[in-house]
Amino acid sequence: MTSPATQEFLDALYLVAVAAEAMSAALIAGRRSMDWVGVCLLGCVTALGGGSVRDILLDHHPLSWVAQPHLLLVAGGAALATIAIARAAHRLRGIFLFLDAVGLVLFTVIGCNVALGLGSPTIVVLAAGMITGCVGGVLRDILCNEIPLLFRAELYATVSVLTGALYLYVLRLAVPHDLAIAVAMLAGLALRLLALRYGWSMPKFVYTRDLH
Amino acid sequence: MTSPATQEFLDALYLVAVAAEAMSAALIAGRRSMDWVGVCLLGCVTALGGGSVRDILLDHHPLSWVAQPHLLLVAGGAALATIAIARAAHRLRGIFLFLDAVGLVLFTVIGCNVALGLGSPTIVVLAAGMITGCVGGVLRDILCNEIPLLFRAELYATVSVLTGALYLYVLRLAVPHDLAIAVAMLAGLALRLLALRYGWSMPKFVYTRDLH
Amino acid sequence: MTSPATQEFLDALYLVAVAAEAMSAALIAGRRSMDWVGVCLLGCVTALGGGSVRDILLDHHPLSWVAQPHLLLVAGGAALATIAIARAAHRLRGIFLFLDAVGLVLFTVIGCNVALGLGSPTIVVLAAGMITGCVGGVLRDILCNEIPLLFRAELYATVSVLTGALYLYVLRLAVPHDLAIAVAMLAGLALRLLALRYGWSMPKFVYTRDLH
Repeated sequence: MTSPATQEFLDALYLVAVAAEAMSAALIAGRRSMDWVGVCLLGCVTALGGGSVRDILLDHHPLSWVAQPHLLLVAGGAALATIAIARAAHRLRGIFLFLDAVGLVLFTVIGCNVALGLGSPTIVVLAAGMITGCVGGVLRDILCNEIPLLFRAELYATVSVLTGALYLYVLRLAVPHDLAIAVAMLAGLALRLLALRYGWSMPKFVYTRDLH
Repeated sequence: MTSPATQEFLDALYLVAVAAEAMSAALIAGRRSMDWVGVCLLGCVTALGGGSVRDILLDHHPLSWVAQPHLLLVAGGAALATIAIARAAHRLRGIFLFLDAVGLVLFTVIGCNVALGLGSPTIVVLAAGMITGCVGGVLRDILCNEIPLLFRAELYATVSVLTGALYLYVLRLAVPHDLAIAVAMLAGLALRLLALRYGWSMPKFVYTRDLH
Repeated sequence: MTSPATQEFLDALYLVAVAAEAMSAALIAGRRSMDWVGVCLLGCVTALGGGSVRDILLDHHPLSWVAQPHLLLVAGGAALATIAIARAAHRLRGIFLFLDAVGLVLFTVIGCNVALGLGSPTIVVLAAGMITGCVGGVLRDILCNEIPLLFRAELYATVSVLTGALYLYVLRLAVPHDLAIAVAMLAGLALRLLALRYGWSMPKFVYTRDLH
């Protein structure tokens, strides 16, 4: 169990991460000249889609935003607020990328915890973490009619899987739960920020022959 | 409770709306030179996808077409029939747009009712209505490899949310259920048709700076 | 009931089909220069997505890969192995297409069996078979930002529906279950291979008028 203080901190951080994911999505919506409704919807799908897909796959109901509908207001509101501050968004770019990285590792740990609570096997726990951390962005890219960035760039999914694996490993050392969360999230965050800073990426598979 | 006569009318209208959504989807499939199987599948996904996504998100089983498989025949059959009458389709354009608008408000009210029956909070009821009314078209656009029209044009999602909100408001006035349904649907239908007629749309969010 | 020997054969064939679907998806990922993580994820989604969507629609939990997580290793491993043997992939093209056809009819029969086990009506059984056989490829095409091949080409969905229908028909003749599976799969496989060989396809619906 996490301590009450840690849980409160994680709950607050979760709201910040949901808002940050929605704001990033709103900027991408703006690049495609979506209308305000589209901005709002894309923000909600991006911020809450990963957890929703995880819960549907694991039959874990009710979904987070069905049980806590204020999450829809946070995500939709943050997306709309982005329109107002769009002029300043460019200067806030660093903060966005940082909060997006926080969201990635936090969502991953939350996803692992849901699967752990359901007694899932290790591979499924890692998959649940990665789905929670990454699928929101995949849905965003599908709705924007693009090949998901996840499949092509940066150590996004890799950071998520490594964060989950480290979290499970530290948990088994019988250290306090809070410590396991802190270690996994900080390590994952560091790796993601380093990958962004130095442009690290996985090798690409390039196949140019005709398939048919 | 709706009166039996109203329920019968709504059930009949539902079949008409399912067929109309499938036929609109079929015309879009024809624009992309899909084969007959693709036309049939796109019709089913468009007409029944919104309700299916709502039921999956709310854990409301069985899905409509699992419990009432004739809905698959209505949607698939209507899509295929569109191929036969394609030459006349252009002249029927006004009827299609009208029936599509009927489908939007009817699906919205049905979706709200499902969430109300599950005791969902107000925001989730509105979301369920909008998902039922709009997601079929989003799936259609994804399968046609386009940015969903919903995110870019006309008051489609807005009409759905306003229809749902009006429905909930009138329900609380302790008027007969039938009246609440009629008021919400007629007002939503009027708004949608006016939006089509006068090209009303939400303001767009245009953001042109590089994100990375 | 299938005999134990048949069940063992089908289980082994299922693993081969999962690997084959993942390898085909990997080659398509390579054509889009995805990175290794993308190749791995696209392989898993393609190979296991059809069954997952079927189970979500029918509320049949746990999903196959949640109950048998080694399926994720088989699919992901096969996709990654494809990178190593990519140079030889062109010469293995015939084998890929054959195994893909085996996967189509096998997945179809498995999907029908799941729906039969849930007591679904006939149309839903056929839909479950087709979803299991075809939706993995649809998800693959969506993630690759293409109009699904299923909607445009070859007798893919048609083979699946006919395989399912023949399976249900033979089952009603009160022959042994093993025989029904063998007849349906072999007939479906033959039809699919003939369609590939002779380029059979469904007629297309071409509609060129403006919709709006």
